Formats: sequence, structure tokens, C-alpha cells
Amino acid sequence: MNTTAGAEPGGAAVVVIGAGLIGASIGCALTVAGQTVHLRDAKLSHARVAASVGAGTTEPPVRAEVGLVVVAVPPRAIAEVVGQALRAYPHATVTDVGSVKAGVLNALWGSDLALERYVGSHPMAGSQHSGPVAARADLFAQRPWVITPHRRSADESVERVAALALSCGAVTHTMDVDDHDAAVARVSHLPHLMSVLMAGHLTTVPERHLLLAGQGLRDVTRVAGGDPGLWEQIVGANSEAVLSELRSVADELSRVIKALESGPETEELRDQLHRGVQGTRRIPGKHGSAPVAYQQVVVAIPDAPGALARLFTDVGAAGVNVEDISIEHDQARQVGYLSLSVTPEQAPGLESAMRQHGWQVQL
Amino acid sequence: MNTTAGAEPGGAAVVVIGAGLIGASIGCALTVAGQTVHLRDAKLSHARVAASVGAGTTEPPVRAEVGLVVVAVPPRAIAEVVGQALRAYPHATVTDVGSVKAGVLNALWGSDLALERYVGSHPMAGSQHSGPVAARADLFAQRPWVITPHRRSADESVERVAALALSCGAVTHTMDVDDHDAAVARVSHLPHLMSVLMAGHLTTVPERHLLLAGQGLRDVTRVAGGDPGLWEQIVGANSEAVLSELRSVADELSRVIKALESGPETEELRDQLHRGVQGTRRIPGKHGSAPVAYQQVVVAIPDAPGALARLFTDVGAAGVNVEDISIEHDQARQVGYLSLSVTPEQAPGLESAMRQHGWQVQL
Repeated sequence: MNTTAGAEPGGAAVVVIGAGLIGASIGCALTVAGQTVHLRDAKLSHARVAASVGAGTTEPPVRAEVGLVVVAVPPRAIAEVVGQALRAYPHATVTDVGSVKAGVLNALWGSDLALERYVGSHPMAGSQHSGPVAARADLFAQRPWVITPHRRSADESVERVAALALSCGAVTHTMDVDDHDAAVARVSHLPHLMSVLMAGHLTTVPERHLLLAGQGLRDVTRVAGGDPGLWEQIVGANSEAVLSELRSVADELSRVIKALESGPETEELRDQLHRGVQGTRRIPGKHGSAPVAYQQVVVAIPDAPGALARLFTDVGAAGVNVEDISIEHDQARQVGYLSLSVTPEQAPGLESAMRQHGWQVQL
Repeated sequence: MNTTAGAEPGGAAVVVIGAGLIGASIGCALTVAGQTVHLRDAKLSHARVAASVGAGTTEPPVRAEVGLVVVAVPPRAIAEVVGQALRAYPHATVTDVGSVKAGVLNALWGSDLALERYVGSHPMAGSQHSGPVAARADLFAQRPWVITPHRRSADESVERVAALALSCGAVTHTMDVDDHDAAVARVSHLPHLMSVLMAGHLTTVPERHLLLAGQGLRDVTRVAGGDPGLWEQIVGANSEAVLSELRSVADELSRVIKALESGPETEELRDQLHRGVQGTRRIPGKHGSAPVAYQQVVVAIPDAPGALARLFTDVGAAGVNVEDISIEHDQARQVGYLSLSVTPEQAPGLESAMRQHGWQVQL
């Protein structure tokens, strides 16, 4: 990163170019935060609708007063619009909010643009719905917002983009463009394509079978309902990284198929199912916090009617947050235990509370 | 189906064998409905916990008073336990609630059992959590419950199982065992394995990349957190049907890979993404109702500040349930339209309400 190279600090006005879901939601969040947002869109009707939902104004800005330009256009148009914005707003930091970062930077790199004022970013939020009608000021609240500085970015440009993310309530992560693109191939583009393959397969399923669909199928296929035109551009822009992930999954899939072909009871299937459970446990908590390792407090299940109801009452009264309860059974001794999962800090308190109430707690 | 062949009608008592999530939840639902439920489990502690959460009693029943036995044991044990139940409770209808139906029926078919009293069924409900602690009386409310009669089932046995499903608040579907197994391979077992493959792949992803995980990844991988021991048995019991679906998805996946290898902009990718959207649209509504085809009411977007906010107010005041709003833009004329999706019955009302308020409605 560098100190600013000749650019004077811009003013307080923000221009959002592209009044779709993301652009309009940024406009709403900044408007709520008291900032002045000017909306632009190749389709005037989109800018008007965005303005009507509180994302800003369609009035043109005074160029010299613009301190930040947010480029929220479709992936294929980003590099060109970023270049135009750097020229049109000479005092502004320019960021884009595209889902893939290396291609945009590569396209800009050889130019004579003031790249010290450009810093890419990527708010990790979305919706099945698209367009400004679906805009929400809190779309980015507590969500990751990746900032991808490059070696010519001015420090103050990076800070300006971080301030944007924070104004939208997001949690900032700083990453190199290539590392970002590998990450989103893994946690966003691959899951999208897996969902698409599953949903696409449903086009071959008879309607009477679809009547049995449960929440599992709905969850697995939900993201496949996203805008195909947008996803074509996203996956296309990150095709190398996505290919590597797809090949790896295809290998695992063919292992499962081969294993099932050899007979219904296979170690391979068992391994894959356990690997899946391990994978879900690696996904961090809702707000980007690390996954919590719980501690188990194990209480013997009493052999008297009504005693268990009393045990549950005592667990409740201990005032700790029990995350999970499972039963462990000693088949030889025909004795059962309740295993109560709590955070490590709460475990000693629960343990002593249960002992005080006369329950037999295992060590 | 047949009329009853010698079996006297059983009494009102219900025995649930297997006090896991499904068995205990059935026990809770029937107890709430005022029925007497006797709980049995190879692991006494599970039966005790189930009793403590309101699923019934661990007291043994009077055999002659038992009119219904629900077998809710792990898949591999079902056929044997159904056979034992048919012998032990001579007046009872016996059903199982396993996820795969043909294998159980095949295993029972050659025996001298009173198969007119056996009717398989499958409540399509579950939870990431397992065991009786997670039991809920409303687990089956509004969910599909498939009943799979066979050519020896007595009509009254089928009716008894249907009554069970209705007591649990479920929606019954009657299917042949093979048709059922093909259906669940498609809407349940394949999606589970796709989720498992995606989640398993996360075991190879660096932790800093997982910090960017959003709701999409969580949705796609949620079911992969389910009990691997149970799923091993389910998939194993339906391996032929599952294999056929897996092969089909593997073919589509290799098409996507080949297409992306040929370059980032491919018609194949576009087709797959559109196919995915079509597939999600085929999934029926939450309560098993058919997917609704909405009708669009299209209103010109006015070219005056504040007018759109007034338009949204008028849409709201029309008292119709707008399912979706999208923007259509005529690039040549730089004119935009709001397309309001409503049920066909509500469309004429919304149209006339908007006209009355002076809006320009397209035909």
C-alpha cells in the first residue's frame, strides 16, 4: 500500500453505479447512516425504483464533491465502469462489489488509471430476490465484506472502503485478490453449482415424487433459484478456480458410485458420510465467529418414573445454555447417560449445580 | 387390498418400538391426541427419556389390547422387528416408519406371517437432531406421510395406518413400495448425498476461506450434518435407486467440467443454470400444495419524484398479496415497468384498483 499519489481527498458524497439489489442496499444503508447517495443505472427505471425505496437520489452529483464511487454493475461490466469512474470522479476512491476480484484488477492493471484510488471489495450478502425492490439497509449487517487491496492502493483508499463496509454494518476481511477468488470458489461458487446440479436433476423427476419433497431438498436447492445470468458471469469470471473444486468433487462422486456398485454396505459410503459431518462442523457460526467446541456434562439417567422430568427441570434452572443433549447408553450394564453440551466456561457451573441437586455426574 | 383375514380388531393401545426421534415424536403426537402409548427400545434409557418428554409410558402393555404397533427402529432391524411384532401382538396392525420400503416387504414376503396386518409407511419428517430428547408432537404436522399398501394388506390395516398419520397431523400419500423408493432416492437420498459431497469437500478448505461462508453454503450443507450411521443404512437399503440418480448427476457434472475447460463462456453452463432455476420452481409449496403459477400485473413506472413511493402505497392498500415484484425495462424507449406477481384470482382486483388510482396498467 502507498500514501496518496496526488489525489486530493474527495468530498462526502457517494455515487452508487448499478441500482440492483447490492447497489440499492448499499444506498439504503448509507442513507440510513446519514450519507448523501447519488444513484446511477444504465436503466433509469432501476435507479428510480432504488430511489423510491430509500437508496438515495437520482439527481446527478457535483463531481468534485464525490469522495466514494461504488460500482455495483454486473461482473462483465465492472472493469470498464471502474475505469470510467476513476476518470469521471478525480477525487474519489472507487470500489467495486463484484464476486470475483482478480480479473477486474488484471483488466485495469496495464492502464494509465489512478489505481491508487481503486480498491476492490466484496460484500458477502445476497438474496434469492434481485433488483432494487428487494433492497434492504440491513442486507450486510454482520456479514463478511472482503477488501482486496493491491500493491498500488493508497492506504486512505483502503480505509475509505473499510469505512463503507462498516457503515453498512459488515465485518471486514482483508485478502489478496487470488486468495479471495479461491475462497469464493470453495464457499460460494461450488456450493451454488452443486445446488444447481441437484435442482436441475429435479426437471427429470415426476411430479408425484416431488410431492414428497421436504425441507432438506428445499435447503439444498434454494440457491439454485438465483439469477442464472448473474451466476453465468460469476462462474465464468472464476472458471479456473471453480474447475479445480468441481474436479475434486467429481472424483469423490465417482468413488461413491463405484463403492455402491460393489454392494450396498461399503466403507467408502460410511467415510463420505462422516466426512460430510466433519465438513458441516467446520463452518463458522452465523456471524463469522469460530465454531465453538462444546464440553459435555454427563449425568446418569435415573431409574425412577418422573425423575427425568425433574432432571430436565434442574438443567433448566441451572441457567446455562444447553446446546445439545444426547443419550449415551452402556449396553452391557443397561445404564444410560444424558450428555449435555455446553460451552467450556459453563461446564463447571452446570456440573456443580447438578451435583447439588443430587444427580450422579460422570467425570 | 383385502378384507380382514381372521384377525380380530385390536384394542386402542399403541406400542411404539424404537424410541428415537421419530418413534418418540409419534408417541408425543398420539399422547397429545389422547391415545395410550407404550414405549419400547433395546436401550431402556432411550425409552425412559422418551417417556419423560411425554411420548408415553415404559410400562408394558396388555398384549391383547394393542391395536397398533409402530416399528421405528434403525433400517437394518425393521423387517425382523416387524415380524416379531406381528407374532407378539395378534390383534394389532403393524407399520414401520422406515425411509426405504421394498426391502422390508421383500424380507417379510416369504414368511408365514399375517401380512394382512402389516402396512409400511414413511413419515417424511426429521431434524438435524436425533434421539428422543429432540422429540416434538408437531414434527409431522402438515408433512407428507406415505402409506405403502401391498396386495395382501387388509383394508382396515391400511385405514388404521392412515388414522395414525392423521392423528400426527400429517398429509397422507398412498404409493407402491417401488414407486416410493424411487421417489425418496430422488427427493431425499440424492439431495442428502449431494449435501454430503459438498460438506465433505469443506474438510479440504483452509479455515480463513471458511470465514467467508454465507447462508448459501449453510443451506446446501445442512442435511449433511445428519446421523451418518442412519444414512448409511438408508442409502444402503436403496442403493440401486440411488445409484441411478447419482450416475445421472455425475454425467451432468462432467458436462459442466468439460464445458468450463473449453472456456469461461459456455452455453452448457448457461443451460445448467437455467435448468436449476426450472428445477427449484417444480418443488411444491411448503405444505405439499402444487406450485402456484402467478399472474403479472404490469404498471408503468412514473417519471416523477415521490410517485413510486405513492405507487407502492397504493399496491399495499389494494389488499392483495404481492408474491414478487420485478422491474422490466424497455431499453429503446428508456421506460420501465413494475411487474407485480399475484395469484390469478387476485390479478383483476389489483388491476382495477391500480387503474382507479390513476396508474397506467399494461395489458
